[in-house]
Amino acid sequence: MAEMPADTAWIIRPENRRYLSGFRANDTQFTESSGSLLINKDRSVLVTDSRYTTEAESEAIDFEVKTLKQGLIEPFCELVNGMEIRNLAFEKDYLSWSLHHQLSERLGSFSPPIRLIPSNDVLEEMREVKDTAEIKAMEASADLISAVLDEVIAGLKTGTTEKTIAWQIEGLARDAGSEGLAFPSIVASGPNSALPHAVPTERKIKPKEPIILDVGVRLEGYCSDMTRTVFLGNPIPDFKKIYAVVRQAQLAALENIRPGVESSHPDAVARQVIGDAGFGKYFVHSLGHGVGLATHERPRLGPINPVKLKTGMIVTVEPGIYIPGKGGVRLEEMVVIEENGPRILTKNDHFYDFM
Amino acid sequence: MAEMPADTAWIIRPENRRYLSGFRANDTQFTESSGSLLINKDRSVLVTDSRYTTEAESEAIDFEVKTLKQGLIEPFCELVNGMEIRNLAFEKDYLSWSLHHQLSERLGSFSPPIRLIPSNDVLEEMREVKDTAEIKAMEASADLISAVLDEVIAGLKTGTTEKTIAWQIEGLARDAGSEGLAFPSIVASGPNSALPHAVPTERKIKPKEPIILDVGVRLEGYCSDMTRTVFLGNPIPDFKKIYAVVRQAQLAALENIRPGVESSHPDAVARQVIGDAGFGKYFVHSLGHGVGLATHERPRLGPINPVKLKTGMIVTVEPGIYIPGKGGVRLEEMVVIEENGPRILTKNDHFYDFM
Repeated sequence: MAEMPADTAWIIRPENRRYLSGFRANDTQFTESSGSLLINKDRSVLVTDSRYTTEAESEAIDFEVKTLKQGLIEPFCELVNGMEIRNLAFEKDYLSWSLHHQLSERLGSFSPPIRLIPSNDVLEEMREVKDTAEIKAMEASADLISAVLDEVIAGLKTGTTEKTIAWQIEGLARDAGSEGLAFPSIVASGPNSALPHAVPTERKIKPKEPIILDVGVRLEGYCSDMTRTVFLGNPIPDFKKIYAVVRQAQLAALENIRPGVESSHPDAVARQVIGDAGFGKYFVHSLGHGVGLATHERPRLGPINPVKLKTGMIVTVEPGIYIPGKGGVRLEEMVVIEENGPRILTKNDHFYDFM
Repeated sequence: MAEMPADTAWIIRPENRRYLSGFRANDTQFTESSGSLLINKDRSVLVTDSRYTTEAESEAIDFEVKTLKQGLIEPFCELVNGMEIRNLAFEKDYLSWSLHHQLSERLGSFSPPIRLIPSNDVLEEMREVKDTAEIKAMEASADLISAVLDEVIAGLKTGTTEKTIAWQIEGLARDAGSEGLAFPSIVASGPNSALPHAVPTERKIKPKEPIILDVGVRLEGYCSDMTRTVFLGNPIPDFKKIYAVVRQAQLAALENIRPGVESSHPDAVARQVIGDAGFGKYFVHSLGHGVGLATHERPRLGPINPVKLKTGMIVTVEPGIYIPGKGGVRLEEMVVIEENGPRILTKNDHFYDFM
């Protein structure tokens, strides 16, 4: 709080809201909030509407719960004014232009006026580094998805559709006690594996072709994220080569992750390995991203806006090569950064030794 | 387009993007777009990044696909300038303050400057009224969930947990060929049914208590939404009474839905019925909402910002009474508004006659 040029923080982003308050509700749509927090040195208030009052009171035990009429600007502004807030920090990546516009007009009309101040992602920065309890929760989430993926890979059979496999993953994840998937599973076979964000189709998996499985679950709010590329039988030689390059890039990147290193560095290392092998233009995304209450959060492991890696950050390491029309390979580990380097949380050793 | 004080529309909202282009990708998070559209009288451009190029080209057949580097402001602004756009309309409820801020700075620096113009939800208004093909898609979506709910209700047994039932709904919806759920199913029994947005728990369903099932699927992009409240055996007398009032409110509201009527009117009618029965303060949400490519879209059937109902609108009619700590009843139909009144799309007649 001390770093913000504001007397109060207004938290609307669901992950941040849960992180600070324990209130578990998810927003059904971006434009439909189930609540927000107003936090300053004197008070911690959870603002919600009558649909969520009961849950808010039982989950956010350190917060005063205020129930306002859903979607109305006026009672919210009155509450802010009543709390004697004068400089209210908001989450600039998450507040819509429209809501900001309406609020700043009304808040500015109080006397003295209340100012809205774009916040520098203070909470996203806090969430970058996980504490011991969070790391434990992330381990549990990683353990669960690792076991699910083990079972799925062991049972893969020629002729099963991508959709069927995706559905099996979801069922096993539920049965194992997760809150559900962290994101829709990617099951992409043959040419579909060339699409980094492929949606499972009715295509039946075949021998020799790459099958990308990119999966994660949510457990106590915390997300896991991992990818394996598997083959039924011996892959066609091109993909043996590609697999070996991706795995080599991943191992090289892992060796270059430690506290104090720029987050762009491991990406550059992996990109170098893939580029040297002649596949540079087919590695179309960045190396990885932070994971926590959101599947994608800070820091990004890529060339843009590098930050220094710190002990307690949890990131994915997921190089890939995608040849349009033919297929692709992606390998993804989720690791926690410790003093001496990364500790791998995704405990599924389904890797081939094609090097 | 003619109504906008802009020469080009910039479409970022996923439902609008799909509505206009056929591009099916969903955004994984609000802050991670899989693409946007730039549409004016000369050109229709789909802007995406390399993760989605292949899908975009095969799905958005009437659009030029431009692949830009992910997340970078500069190439997007260069593209806009290169298209000789000068007044660019954006979706004001969906663009973040931060992205607007960055874009307006850069776009304003071109010569002549490019202005960003908040749009009056032109597309949301277009989407309010469904055309024949859309109504057909909505009928199919409603048929699918109606059949699923029939099967689920027929199989309800004392001792099954809410979570198990929710999972069964999801499985049946998949097996029947849906793209998945339109929203996480609500299965809320006993006191949990007093929470309008209850999340399924490990609670086992019991005889005599209300069990709310609020469910919907997505089929070819189109969402369905329906709710039944069921009892195993004879309900306790309080809930017979409450059920009868809710059903009476629903039927009264349905009688007051037709083209030309203010969207606030059926809500007022239902509220009157529930208020007259002494339960006014327990009807904590509005009567209904539009459904289409999004589960919640325009128009809202409630007291705020009324609009005139039109032929071809598809809305839910879902009064409810929620007694904290005891339980609740909600009954929801999805209807298409026709010349002579509403036609009910959700064909599941599991209603009790407690009146």
